[in-house]
Amino acid sequence: MNFDKETRPAAVPREIGDVLSEAMPWFKKITGTTVLIKYGGAAMENAELRAQVMADIVLLKIIGVKPVIVHGGGKEISAAMERSGLPVEFIDGQRVTSDEAMDLVRMILAGRVNQELVAAMNEHGTMAVGLSGADAHIIVAEQADPRLGRVGSIKRINSGLIEDLAAGDYIPVIATVAVGEDGGYYNVNADVAAGHIAAAIGAHKILFLTDVDGLYLDYGDPETLISKMTLHEARSLMADGTISKGMIPKLNACVTALDSGVHRAHIINGTVPHAILLELLTDKGIGTMIKPDEESVVVPASPVDNFAQKLKEHQ
Amino acid sequence: MNFDKETRPAAVPREIGDVLSEAMPWFKKITGTTVLIKYGGAAMENAELRAQVMADIVLLKIIGVKPVIVHGGGKEISAAMERSGLPVEFIDGQRVTSDEAMDLVRMILAGRVNQELVAAMNEHGTMAVGLSGADAHIIVAEQADPRLGRVGSIKRINSGLIEDLAAGDYIPVIATVAVGEDGGYYNVNADVAAGHIAAAIGAHKILFLTDVDGLYLDYGDPETLISKMTLHEARSLMADGTISKGMIPKLNACVTALDSGVHRAHIINGTVPHAILLELLTDKGIGTMIKPDEESVVVPASPVDNFAQKLKEHQ
Amino acid sequence: MNFDKETRPAAVPREIGDVLSEAMPWFKKITGTTVLIKYGGAAMENAELRAQVMADIVLLKIIGVKPVIVHGGGKEISAAMERSGLPVEFIDGQRVTSDEAMDLVRMILAGRVNQELVAAMNEHGTMAVGLSGADAHIIVAEQADPRLGRVGSIKRINSGLIEDLAAGDYIPVIATVAVGEDGGYYNVNADVAAGHIAAAIGAHKILFLTDVDGLYLDYGDPETLISKMTLHEARSLMADGTISKGMIPKLNACVTALDSGVHRAHIINGTVPHAILLELLTDKGIGTMIKPDEESVVVPASPVDNFAQKLKEHQ
Amino acid sequence: MNFDKETRPAAVPREIGDVLSEAMPWFKKITGTTVLIKYGGAAMENAELRAQVMADIVLLKIIGVKPVIVHGGGKEISAAMERSGLPVEFIDGQRVTSDEAMDLVRMILAGRVNQELVAAMNEHGTMAVGLSGADAHIIVAEQADPRLGRVGSIKRINSGLIEDLAAGDYIPVIATVAVGEDGGYYNVNADVAAGHIAAAIGAHKILFLTDVDGLYLDYGDPETLISKMTLHEARSLMADGTISKGMIPKLNACVTALDSGVHRAHIINGTVPHAILLELLTDKGIGTMIKPDEESVVVPASPVDNFAQKLKEHQ
Amino acid sequence: MNFDKETRPAAVPREIGDVLSEAMPWFKKITGTTVLIKYGGAAMENAELRAQVMADIVLLKIIGVKPVIVHGGGKEISAAMERSGLPVEFIDGQRVTSDEAMDLVRMILAGRVNQELVAAMNEHGTMAVGLSGADAHIIVAEQADPRLGRVGSIKRINSGLIEDLAAGDYIPVIATVAVGEDGGYYNVNADVAAGHIAAAIGAHKILFLTDVDGLYLDYGDPETLISKMTLHEARSLMADGTISKGMIPKLNACVTALDSGVHRAHIINGTVPHAILLELLTDKGIGTMIKPDEESVVVPASPVDNFAQKLKEHQ
Amino acid sequence: MNFDKETRPAAVPREIGDVLSEAMPWFKKITGTTVLIKYGGAAMENAELRAQVMADIVLLKIIGVKPVIVHGGGKEISAAMERSGLPVEFIDGQRVTSDEAMDLVRMILAGRVNQELVAAMNEHGTMAVGLSGADAHIIVAEQADPRLGRVGSIKRINSGLIEDLAAGDYIPVIATVAVGEDGGYYNVNADVAAGHIAAAIGAHKILFLTDVDGLYLDYGDPETLISKMTLHEARSLMADGTISKGMIPKLNACVTALDSGVHRAHIINGTVPHAILLELLTDKGIGTMIKPDEESVVVPASPVDNFAQKLKEHQ
Repeated sequence: MNFDKETRPAAVPREIGDVLSEAMPWFKKITGTTVLIKYGGAAMENAELRAQVMADIVLLKIIGVKPVIVHGGGKEISAAMERSGLPVEFIDGQRVTSDEAMDLVRMILAGRVNQELVAAMNEHGTMAVGLSGADAHIIVAEQADPRLGRVGSIKRINSGLIEDLAAGDYIPVIATVAVGEDGGYYNVNADVAAGHIAAAIGAHKILFLTDVDGLYLDYGDPETLISKMTLHEARSLMADGTISKGMIPKLNACVTALDSGVHRAHIINGTVPHAILLELLTDKGIGTMIKPDEESVVVPASPVDNFAQKLKEHQ
Repeated sequence: MNFDKETRPAAVPREIGDVLSEAMPWFKKITGTTVLIKYGGAAMENAELRAQVMADIVLLKIIGVKPVIVHGGGKEISAAMERSGLPVEFIDGQRVTSDEAMDLVRMILAGRVNQELVAAMNEHGTMAVGLSGADAHIIVAEQADPRLGRVGSIKRINSGLIEDLAAGDYIPVIATVAVGEDGGYYNVNADVAAGHIAAAIGAHKILFLTDVDGLYLDYGDPETLISKMTLHEARSLMADGTISKGMIPKLNACVTALDSGVHRAHIINGTVPHAILLELLTDKGIGTMIKPDEESVVVPASPVDNFAQKLKEHQ
Repeated sequence: MNFDKETRPAAVPREIGDVLSEAMPWFKKITGTTVLIKYGGAAMENAELRAQVMADIVLLKIIGVKPVIVHGGGKEISAAMERSGLPVEFIDGQRVTSDEAMDLVRMILAGRVNQELVAAMNEHGTMAVGLSGADAHIIVAEQADPRLGRVGSIKRINSGLIEDLAAGDYIPVIATVAVGEDGGYYNVNADVAAGHIAAAIGAHKILFLTDVDGLYLDYGDPETLISKMTLHEARSLMADGTISKGMIPKLNACVTALDSGVHRAHIINGTVPHAILLELLTDKGIGTMIKPDEESVVVPASPVDNFAQKLKEHQ
Repeated sequence: MNFDKETRPAAVPREIGDVLSEAMPWFKKITGTTVLIKYGGAAMENAELRAQVMADIVLLKIIGVKPVIVHGGGKEISAAMERSGLPVEFIDGQRVTSDEAMDLVRMILAGRVNQELVAAMNEHGTMAVGLSGADAHIIVAEQADPRLGRVGSIKRINSGLIEDLAAGDYIPVIATVAVGEDGGYYNVNADVAAGHIAAAIGAHKILFLTDVDGLYLDYGDPETLISKMTLHEARSLMADGTISKGMIPKLNACVTALDSGVHRAHIINGTVPHAILLELLTDKGIGTMIKPDEESVVVPASPVDNFAQKLKEHQ
Repeated sequence: MNFDKETRPAAVPREIGDVLSEAMPWFKKITGTTVLIKYGGAAMENAELRAQVMADIVLLKIIGVKPVIVHGGGKEISAAMERSGLPVEFIDGQRVTSDEAMDLVRMILAGRVNQELVAAMNEHGTMAVGLSGADAHIIVAEQADPRLGRVGSIKRINSGLIEDLAAGDYIPVIATVAVGEDGGYYNVNADVAAGHIAAAIGAHKILFLTDVDGLYLDYGDPETLISKMTLHEARSLMADGTISKGMIPKLNACVTALDSGVHRAHIINGTVPHAILLELLTDKGIGTMIKPDEESVVVPASPVDNFAQKLKEHQ
Repeated sequence: MNFDKETRPAAVPREIGDVLSEAMPWFKKITGTTVLIKYGGAAMENAELRAQVMADIVLLKIIGVKPVIVHGGGKEISAAMERSGLPVEFIDGQRVTSDEAMDLVRMILAGRVNQELVAAMNEHGTMAVGLSGADAHIIVAEQADPRLGRVGSIKRINSGLIEDLAAGDYIPVIATVAVGEDGGYYNVNADVAAGHIAAAIGAHKILFLTDVDGLYLDYGDPETLISKMTLHEARSLMADGTISKGMIPKLNACVTALDSGVHRAHIINGTVPHAILLELLTDKGIGTMIKPDEESVVVPASPVDNFAQKLKEHQ
């Protein structure tokens, strides 16, 4: 007989047990909840990081979380416009979008970027479903400013399709192309769209995967990373100019989401391996968390009081 | 008082009543069934016809039918390739598809044609959802022939997503781009894909909207239009060369579908106003119908025997 | 091979398609609703008309409508009383009903007329179930006027049995014999009973099949047929004597029904072929329609806005 | 204060407790089962007995039994025929039934006798629903013998309506008028019809309420009352002429019922107060019980073994 | 053939039928309700009586009642303490309970008395489940008085487990050992615990099985047995000292139960054969019944009005 | 403003993410399964270890596993017997158990040890429910050997109650006292009982918490710890005497369980912190695993193929 003697160490590190024990209430807590992940930055452009993020999202789906992915694709659009000889122009940080450009935006976002994310996720199965704002009229917009052409401002989210897919066996992956009531297409900011969608689908959390560790009181000083703040504090920091300009759309999206009942918004570093899991399954989490100003102190009757207490106090 | 006296004629034509009376059992019969509509030709290219077809499909959904739309887009692809300076070449009627061409095919089919059908249908609500074969790995293919590049031969249909959407509030509109197990994309024939999908989702009927009234024994002679034939007869006509070459993929798709249990295949003229309704809701239908060779004579016990008899004998 | 070439015309009239297209939202709208049909007049006495009306009602049941039939039988009762040598006398249009007469009324209505309608309907299956007011105490009445003997005035409808049968595989056919709390039987007006039953079962519509095209402002002038009016207008017309005496019980029944939440009351000509289908499945309908004075303008969120609009505006 | 001191005896008879204790498993055993009661004889003609039988049947319904009542009405029919001057003639014990007689039979059975039983039962609520064989085509017959006119022999029972009503809040009361596939009516033997209906609805028991205590080996000798016998024994007694002629249709109906899976047939004396309850709720029962020849010895796993044993051995 | 002629009497006593007829509405009324039985006294100590009580409780379970048993065990505890040489001391009728005594109490109540009742009930199947207050923290108490040691006063009942078992196939049998929030055990009065548990589980009735026929206005005079009284009257009798001291905890428990919505409290003589059945299944019941002061006069709509009336007026 | 800056490290160890990522499929895999834990040894005697094991079991319940605990209590029994002056004697490793001893065993196991485990687990809520083999006749035994007195050999497990509680909000904690069909109690080996119970409830896994790291080929040589073996190999090792005597009952129990369809048996060191979690939630697990000889290679269709593959290959 040939017994399998070596593959299991006789001793195992106590630390693994502690990590598991710590994670278990969080597993329970997030099971069945909807988590919206705004995906972008290096974690989307780097193929290896992208593969790992897609795998982690599939793992979330497997344990019963309902992830919803929202993405834009600014860099690919700029590159395609340049290849096509279309002018690239920005007014107040917003891309001027002609009809021709919009046609290209649509094909790049819905026809290429979206399908590539879908394909990367479907390496692990058949869960990912690519959507654009035109499908079931998910994102309805109107013209934001005549000078900007087909740049849209969001009027309404039709969330039924997203909720149906997320409640089923699927992971919706949404390209932020919007449709107008005039039948035309509009180009909308992906961060802003993510905030509206999180609000509309009643997400439990919204996570922004970025290239930085979170928000800083002083961007140059890593010691000033903000771990946790209230919605009120977030508004103050935007008002007094503390927050860097590039973070404003993300922070505004957090405000939109929390105002509509989303429980927590997180800005985390998507380049940290397993960043999403660390955020969702450890007591401390990572990055910057924004929470509502006043939370109800009513905690539902729980069969396990001390764990309930823990879950109430943290994250 | 101002009574509304004129808007209703005191007498109404008996014919309307007869049409309604005839249609009622058919309404009942198709309620809850899945009908796959392979959409193409003039009915897709002409904006007015397209609008009416889309409206009829929405009406079907409203009364409880589960329509599923499958489309290609050959003409638009050729035009785009020419605009992009890519060579347009066919071998044995199949488009040679380089990697660059495939990228364009994908963007045109999934990013433009599909989204335009979705938008036209969503003029009437929020039902249409655009899909490509990459979503939930709906259409999995492998290379058909190295000379043809990324032309694919279908290996497997993952039908769950289509069935879930069709059973819900949605009308899936599927662009026939396939994915390979190598992670790449493949260009597949839309008629062939329609046959495989109808088979996989257990459709009740498959309808091909074309530019002609149906199949002819002698294409030049309108008197030879075939109203009804069996699967066996269809195979014979293909074998002896009676059927024109252009109809072969459609007829093959019918064979695929019927062999897998689809009850009826129809080739109808999409340019006839309300062609789909005439086919589904009248005793005689239109176009060419192909039915299985031997049908079970078991008719489930029905509370209404003479209507059941009628439904058994026709269509 | 012997193809079936002739049975389907290559071209079909556009009109059929238009009738079908128009009917589809109405099919949807009436599916699942309860429609009470007060049956009487020539359409009940003429065997051929009766056969067609019964067939149309069975068709309604097949497509998911829940029809409930209410009938009287004055002419047969008078004939039987004469055959039995019982005196036929009316006071204020109401039949004086002795105990012997009541016994005969009961046997004629419940034992013969009702069973004949049941049998005619069951030519098409096993759906019709004959009931009298004594079954499950459906119609409870008390003596209306000592001079009239066993003429009853309705006190209460026990609607459970009717609703259970209509929600199941059955079409209740109700003979309007009532029971009293004293254990005796009462003779009640069938139109009045129909109004009370429609109210009690929460019917969507009540239809009176009569021998005329509807209500007239001036009965002698066909130009004055009223197509549509409100409940308020109906009350006014009764108050000022415009409506002919024979129509008063029907109109009172309409008022009873609409006051209790029935959505529409219709007085139509039962001798028009397929009159019920024309009323239920065309935009214009036939006959005279009475609607509530003020209708809620709240229209439930619909996935198909323009059809919803149509359904709101008409019928 | 005025306490209620006298209404309850300080001591109660042990016997009441024993009766209750004995009855409890039987209550449990019959809950949810269908019991067909063929009603007739003195228990139906005597108003006081009828009232008590109706009350006992309503009590059965209250505790969850599903009673179904089947009745004829020979004496009333003969009386009515005589009143109408129609000839009363029998061939081999079967009433010769002309078309005129059939019309009268129908009105007497469905329009009077049935409605009177319904009314007597509905003294206690709204449970009774009168039916004839024409309703939902419950009893389908064909001509038995041209000499007998409209005397029918049963071809088929459509049991759905009976089962639906009995499973709901209702007690079906069935007048044994049958319909033919020719659209005509037929007069059928009520005992025979009861046996067919019990078989078709899968009754647990069939009870014949008669004017005697049961079957006798020697009718003149009360000592020879048969308490219990098998189906085989019943067949033998009919074959050798032991059983009196008048009991043959009842016994044949028992055979029909048991052959189709009815568990027990009972012939009991309907004039004994609470005869039905004594039969159903005591260990010994009353009258003559007929059981299948071989019963499965498989007893389903019971949480209460000794009670299960008792229930297996008796009744 | 060997017919079974003697085992059934040709005539049965009318009285049995009357008992059954009277019991039927009560069977219906208690089916599905929860009945808490506080068990104790001679009916628990005498093996034969105990066997019969257990059998009657199993019969209740069989017919669909949900019995819950609560018991103490004072005599066994005293005996065990004496055997162990522990001092037996009472202050104001309450047993002074040291830690050692508590350990013994726990083992005697949960480890012996409880298990013996469970075993006696499981003679009839597998329904009985023994519980103590520690299981699922059913009974939570705190120290009542430092002088009494581990005598507890009840703070909270966690009723979920009792309700789940009673709603399932089980009969919970609860030993009245309580747990404290300090993790320790407490000795609580079984009558008092029964009242709290009946209140917490929403029992329909609470029954105290005692050694006397009920409460007396004058304990020495059997004529003064109280058959029925209101909660208000019960409070008055306690206040003015009419009720004997030993009955006070039982009466207080009745008050606790009725104040929380229990419909009836009964104090009955557990030594009367089938006492529980006589109380639950006869119009008059036995013993002393206490009912709320004011009862809602709303009687739910009943299909059987006269029985409903009866059920409203009695018990 | 006072931001929370320090509580979250800007960088987190990659290892935590890897542990979480590895654990996620296992979380999914064990959710909804039943895991029987035979509890004993130092992990039960040491208060701190016991507290941690109880917490880990509660965590399992929280994430959706259905744990079932089985325990004995040899040391406490011996101590109590000595205190009571009862002789402690063993024959072939089995405790000779007189009737007096059995009474003590029962009170110690069901009245004390069981209740202490229940109390320790209920520190975290209200999940634990203590049971003995007498409750719902869970463990039915017969005398094993007259010389051993009330030592029992298991005849039957009635698993319904355990399954009902485990499927609900509860964690059953079972003291291994058995009942006989003679109404008496029996002392059974806890390891053996655990094996029978695991088999009867269809557990997914059985875990034995012991004081050693698993099974050894050579007990003195830690290098010979067996990580994994088949049922066949386990039988061989018992047959040839390799396995130490003390492990034989555990190994026999594993065989009983696996033979009845339990998927995996594990013998692990209960003194390793979080031993249960390490076994259930890591790829390698700990201790000795025994698996069936031949496992079905059929793997159910999984949406996530590579994870399915991993789950098939390990543990």
